This record gives sequence, structure tokens and C-alpha cells, in this order.
Amino acid sequence: MILINGKQTTAIEATDRGLHYGDGLFETIEIINEQPVFLTQHLARLEAGCFVLKITFPSKKLLIGDVSQLCKNITHGVIKIMLTRGSGGRGYRQPDPINVTRYIALHPYPNYPEGYQKEGISARFCTTRLGLNPLLAGLKHNNRLEQVLARTEWQDEFQEGLMQNINGDVIEGTMTNLFVVKNQQVFTSKIVECGVKGIMREVLLEQTELSIKETILSKEDVLQADELFVTNSVIGIWPIRQLEAKTYPIGKLTQQLMIYLSDLKTQDLKLC
Amino acid sequence: MILINGKQTTAIEATDRGLHYGDGLFETIEIINEQPVFLTQHLARLEAGCFVLKITFPSKKLLIGDVSQLCKNITHGVIKIMLTRGSGGRGYRQPDPINVTRYIALHPYPNYPEGYQKEGISARFCTTRLGLNPLLAGLKHNNRLEQVLARTEWQDEFQEGLMQNINGDVIEGTMTNLFVVKNQQVFTSKIVECGVKGIMREVLLEQTELSIKETILSKEDVLQADELFVTNSVIGIWPIRQLEAKTYPIGKLTQQLMIYLSDLKTQDLKLC
Repeated sequence: MILINGKQTTAIEATDRGLHYGDGLFETIEIINEQPVFLTQHLARLEAGCFVLKITFPSKKLLIGDVSQLCKNITHGVIKIMLTRGSGGRGYRQPDPINVTRYIALHPYPNYPEGYQKEGISARFCTTRLGLNPLLAGLKHNNRLEQVLARTEWQDEFQEGLMQNINGDVIEGTMTNLFVVKNQQVFTSKIVECGVKGIMREVLLEQTELSIKETILSKEDVLQADELFVTNSVIGIWPIRQLEAKTYPIGKLTQQLMIYLSDLKTQDLKLC
Repeated sequence: MILINGKQTTAIEATDRGLHYGDGLFETIEIINEQPVFLTQHLARLEAGCFVLKITFPSKKLLIGDVSQLCKNITHGVIKIMLTRGSGGRGYRQPDPINVTRYIALHPYPNYPEGYQKEGISARFCTTRLGLNPLLAGLKHNNRLEQVLARTEWQDEFQEGLMQNINGDVIEGTMTNLFVVKNQQVFTSKIVECGVKGIMREVLLEQTELSIKETILSKEDVLQADELFVTNSVIGIWPIRQLEAKTYPIGKLTQQLMIYLSDLKTQDLKLC
């Protein structure tokens, strides 16, 4: 089900700037027992993204109202919130005033096999590279051709593809952030010139008792890791069991972070 | 008027990947006396772009049919052709098969003052920089946040903004390609790591008797030029009269290229 500006629909204005220029931002949120998980963090990131892109942020009350409406009677699902700069303007020039398009959609929770979380996934390195753009780095904006192209490189043989930037640094998965454990220290890639600052990444960095270091990761660093895992708001944590020809255990720190995350989700849902 | 997959409409499926990921390509074409100018070149670029993005290219006959329908009785106008990867798929993963969305829209020709062509325009340097992505460079794809953000930097004080990449090289205007004349030689920026290979740029490079060099242009190269002009498929050639604090004449080579272009347009329309 989709709400656009509060109304149920299946269509959007053909002049919407989201369609023409990818001129928007989005959030993907897990729903458990009618409650959106880490909603505060998702809305904060969306607002921060709107500030950078100079898109008027709608009232949180409106957004939360739409989300609540779609979450009713949903035990487990996914909500996508997307904001675009709306219709109008002349070419790239933005309309004045901006009438933001508020798109909220409910999706079923994907039917991932339980084994992905319990036994880990198989991953690969993509040949599609991430470009460098410090201005847009971190944001979950709608300019996603790099991820779409990377995802065309395989079908069902792998569960995720890791992406390097054009300098060769390993940044993230196509739909996840990457974490590397080496000698009892957890690392994740710095998101400075490219990549998305995922909410799960942020939660792990800021809310767990473990100190996680943001760093530059080479392909060699990743391959030589003791443990590897990827995160996003829908899957939580998936350990990587296999990457190229190498296999990895689901190590102690990965397991510890999975427990932390589970507790944090429970705490977050109690706040609602 | 808008045709989507051949049907007149004002709306598009809210699940279209163009909206969610900027997962598409477009062309903007001038219409003169019911005829699209340089249509062969536009369709060739669109097909080449589809090949890179792995989007199924629809039959040219279908596209030309849509365009002809919208051009009827139009003395002067603009056609936008956009192709997206359609709806479906799971996240970034593309649908199989891909049902391309074919979007063709007719717009009035913009009411630019005649003086822009005859006396030149006033331009500025943007602070928004182009990121580097060799894979997507050259294509007129729908991931256009950089241009949208650059265009937010001014209102009506200027007619175009020139964009540097993150290394400082001057690449193009927000909606145009840039040409620089120095010591009787015409230069334009190499489009390798970023930027769009515009059809007017291609026509000038390949079809005029002047040898135009593709090069790397610094801000200083541009400011120290003898003549400056920008091009796109709607405006043709606009000389730059003023850039920052400097003024430029509409020089001999710019005038010569304007005549060439006018002749090439006439020849192209006779072929239709």
C-alpha cells in the first residue's frame, strides 16, 4: 500500500522531480508489532539529508501519521519513506516554493532464509565502483545507479556484493554497510567521499559498548579479516561466511554485536 | 502533453525505478516545424546509454512514432524522451524481464530573450562540484542531484553556472557543455570522469570543419580565454559575455561555429 501526500494511490505525477532527476531521499524501516524500529534515527537522517539537498522537510507529525496508518495490524513488515522535491521548476532549477512529495509505502518483510543470520551469507566483490562525491556521501538519496549496476552483476549465487570506490578502497555492500573484525577490534569504512551512512551502522557506532573504529579498508584488509559482517535496517546483522575463495567464522564479536542490536531494538520499541 | 508507453497521461506508476533510483536516461530535443533536430544522434546516444546501464532499448520505430505524434502542428518546441528500467525488482536488483518505461513529453520552447544568443550571457562558477565516476561519465542519466544542487546557487542574475569537478577542473555548465577559444584554437573539456557528452558538443566536434580539441581546462584557462561559449540541444550556442569580473567578446570563431551549427540544423531537417 502506498500513501502519497497522505492519499492512498498507485501512481505519482509524471512531472515529479524524483522521477526526472532522482531528486529525493529515502529511508527503509523495519516494522515489528506495528512499531517502526529506530524511527527517531531514521527521521533525523531524513531531516539532515533534506537540509543538505535544500528540500523542505515536512512536519514529523505528518510523516509519523502516515507511517502509523500503514503499520496498523502489521506484525512484521517494511516501510519506505521517500521525500522528493515535488513537481515543477524549469529544468534543474527548483520550483519556488517547493511542494515536497511525501511517499510512504508498506512492503511485506522479505522472506530471507533464517540461515543468512544464523550461518552467514556468501558475498563477492563487485566490479562496479563507487564514484567520489563528498557532498552527497553519507546520504540515502535517490541517485542510486551505482548500486543498481553493481546489483546486475549476479543473480542468486550470493547474498551481497561489496563495493570498492574508484581508488580501490572497500566502502560498503550494495545495500549494506560493512564491518571487519581484526585482532579483537571492530572496524567499518569511513564514509567521506562516497557510501551511505546506514542507520544500523550508526546505532552500532554510537549505542553499543564496543568501540568501533571508522577507517580506510583495502580489499586485502577485508580478505584478511577474522570476522566479517554487513548491516542494514531490514536485515540487522548478517555475518559473511564466505567471500571469494575465503571462509570466515561467525566470531565472538559479531555474536556480541548481534545481541547488543537485539537489545537495542527491544529498548527502542519500548519507547514508542 | 505526456505519452507513457504510448498512452497520454499525467501520472506514472509510483513503483517506477526512475522515481526510486534515478534508474533511467533522457534526451532533450528541439522541434522545428514538426521535425526533431538531430534525432538520429539523440536516439544513438540513448541507445548507447541503455547499453551501459543494461536497460532494454525499445524499438526506434516506437520512439519515433511517439515523437511524431507529439510534434504534430508544433512550429517550435522541445521534446523530452526518457527511458527508465520500469517497475519491479527487489531493492536495487532489476526486474527480469525489464519492462522499460517509455516517457515522451512535449514542452513549449523556452522564452529565452534573443539577446542571450546575439549579445551573450552572464555566467558564474558554481561552488557545487561534480563527483568522479568514469562509468557514468558522458551519459545523460537521471542521477542529476549535482546539477540540481548547483542550480540552487543563483536565481535570475546569471544564465548559466560553470561546474568544476572535485579536482578543480572545469567540466561544463549545469545544463550545457563549455567551449573555450584561445589563440584561434577551440577547446572543450574532456568528458572522462564526469560530465555529459551533449549532442551539440558532439555535432560541433564531429561535423564542423574546425578542429576542436578535447582537453583538461583549469579555472584559469577559462578565465583567460579569448572567447567562451556554451551549448546544448535547446539553446544551440550561447556566447558568454561575462564570467565573474571578466568580459568577453563574441569572437570570430564563436560566430563561425554559430553559422556552421545553423547550416547543420537546416541540413539535418532536410533529411527527415
